[in-house]
Amino acid sequence: MSTFDTIPKTQQEALVETLLRLADDRLILGHRISEWAGHGPELEEDLALANIALDMIGHASALYTYAAELEGKADEDYYAYFRDDIDFKNIALCELPRGDFAFTIARIFLFSTFSYFLYQKLIDIVEDEQFNGMLQKHFKEIKYHLRHSREWVLRLGDGTEESHQKIQEAFDEIWMYSGEMFDLDEADQVAIQNNLFVDTSDFREEWEKLVVDTLEEATLNVPDMEQYMFSGSRQGRHTEHLGRLLAEMQFLRRSYPDADWK
Amino acid sequence: MSTFDTIPKTQQEALVETLLRLADDRLILGHRISEWAGHGPELEEDLALANIALDMIGHASALYTYAAELEGKADEDYYAYFRDDIDFKNIALCELPRGDFAFTIARIFLFSTFSYFLYQKLIDIVEDEQFNGMLQKHFKEIKYHLRHSREWVLRLGDGTEESHQKIQEAFDEIWMYSGEMFDLDEADQVAIQNNLFVDTSDFREEWEKLVVDTLEEATLNVPDMEQYMFSGSRQGRHTEHLGRLLAEMQFLRRSYPDADWK
Repeated sequence: MSTFDTIPKTQQEALVETLLRLADDRLILGHRISEWAGHGPELEEDLALANIALDMIGHASALYTYAAELEGKADEDYYAYFRDDIDFKNIALCELPRGDFAFTIARIFLFSTFSYFLYQKLIDIVEDEQFNGMLQKHFKEIKYHLRHSREWVLRLGDGTEESHQKIQEAFDEIWMYSGEMFDLDEADQVAIQNNLFVDTSDFREEWEKLVVDTLEEATLNVPDMEQYMFSGSRQGRHTEHLGRLLAEMQFLRRSYPDADWK
Repeated sequence: MSTFDTIPKTQQEALVETLLRLADDRLILGHRISEWAGHGPELEEDLALANIALDMIGHASALYTYAAELEGKADEDYYAYFRDDIDFKNIALCELPRGDFAFTIARIFLFSTFSYFLYQKLIDIVEDEQFNGMLQKHFKEIKYHLRHSREWVLRLGDGTEESHQKIQEAFDEIWMYSGEMFDLDEADQVAIQNNLFVDTSDFREEWEKLVVDTLEEATLNVPDMEQYMFSGSRQGRHTEHLGRLLAEMQFLRRSYPDADWK
């Protein structure tokens, strides 16, 4: 299931597709956050961001490994290193450039809030033991990402005039990329029928409530929920930023296609 | 103790100086390794390098925190963010640019081998409980860094023609920066007298043996031990690379000197 226009037919195909969609979001966002290494506002925060990046890339790696097992691929790194941007299923929110610190916090906050509700629901319905075990394990770390980024939203929003302005700008800028998290296509519908994914509209209100409550507590304006929303990433319509990120990420591995580094 | 030409007079000054010297090496090298995020040859190795970087920056952070406590500074981040390159006490080996993957492995291997023997001896003699506790805790992670990088030296050296050539070039290039690890100046002598540091010549042979054995097992040529060695970093004579690294690392924090991000 590595081309964008294929709809899963069997339960296993639906599972692989779900694993890859979850993994791609986390690999790409983890990569973006890792670009913060050594650029944070304090040492402790540098370590925290690096840990969040590591968690996300670790989650992606576990999901890829299971997908490779199901697809009978010898090497789970295939997914990370040998697919082109059109085959990546991540949403645009994850691939946007690093941005400033406030942008990073806003992005982690919106994504982790979504992941929190999604994983919570998935844990209740996913019957596949290996997948469910992974979700439970990763859920613990997602709770930390949510708590950590939420605290920073409050701290920046309720901080100085400058920090308030930066985090407000960050939410205003990223907002149009938040709707895509909730988009469902035919592949998702197949996954939902197989108890491998959930209807995201089931938790959209909860997500909005947590986000709005947090922004209001941070004395920030809530961007217009009804504004134009970017879409189409999971079908392979990516921004130009993904190609550059992949070029960097895949360069070394692709230069040595026979896995000379092993 | 933040200027390069000050020799510690009291035991506490010697302790602070020792903490900062250890911390600076680890902060700067950890920063360099973190630049590998998302550029490694495989996902697992990306995670491993990120973990090593995190460990090193974490060690630095713990050492800075204790130094700040002893010096009565409110903020341990002072050391990382508000000193200039001349005040950094790290050796050049840690500040050299990222290099290729083989260079990264050679650097981690030489540094971790040194840290391994140094920490082993320090744990035996350091009487200060807080410092000794830190050394013991970090020693466990250093053993992993050593094992991991040693395995890669063997894998690359004994791998393909290309990987062999790359790791040989890496050792040839970095070798002249390895002698500085063993240099001792007046500040070190004061630390040694106070059981806060050890005479590095006590374990130089052990270090050489482990390095030579590993290179030979990896079918690599051992560079000339007697060649010209770079020196003077701990006295503030840094390469131009440190300034650029610090500019990047300190930019955000220094742009908001009132710690607006809190």
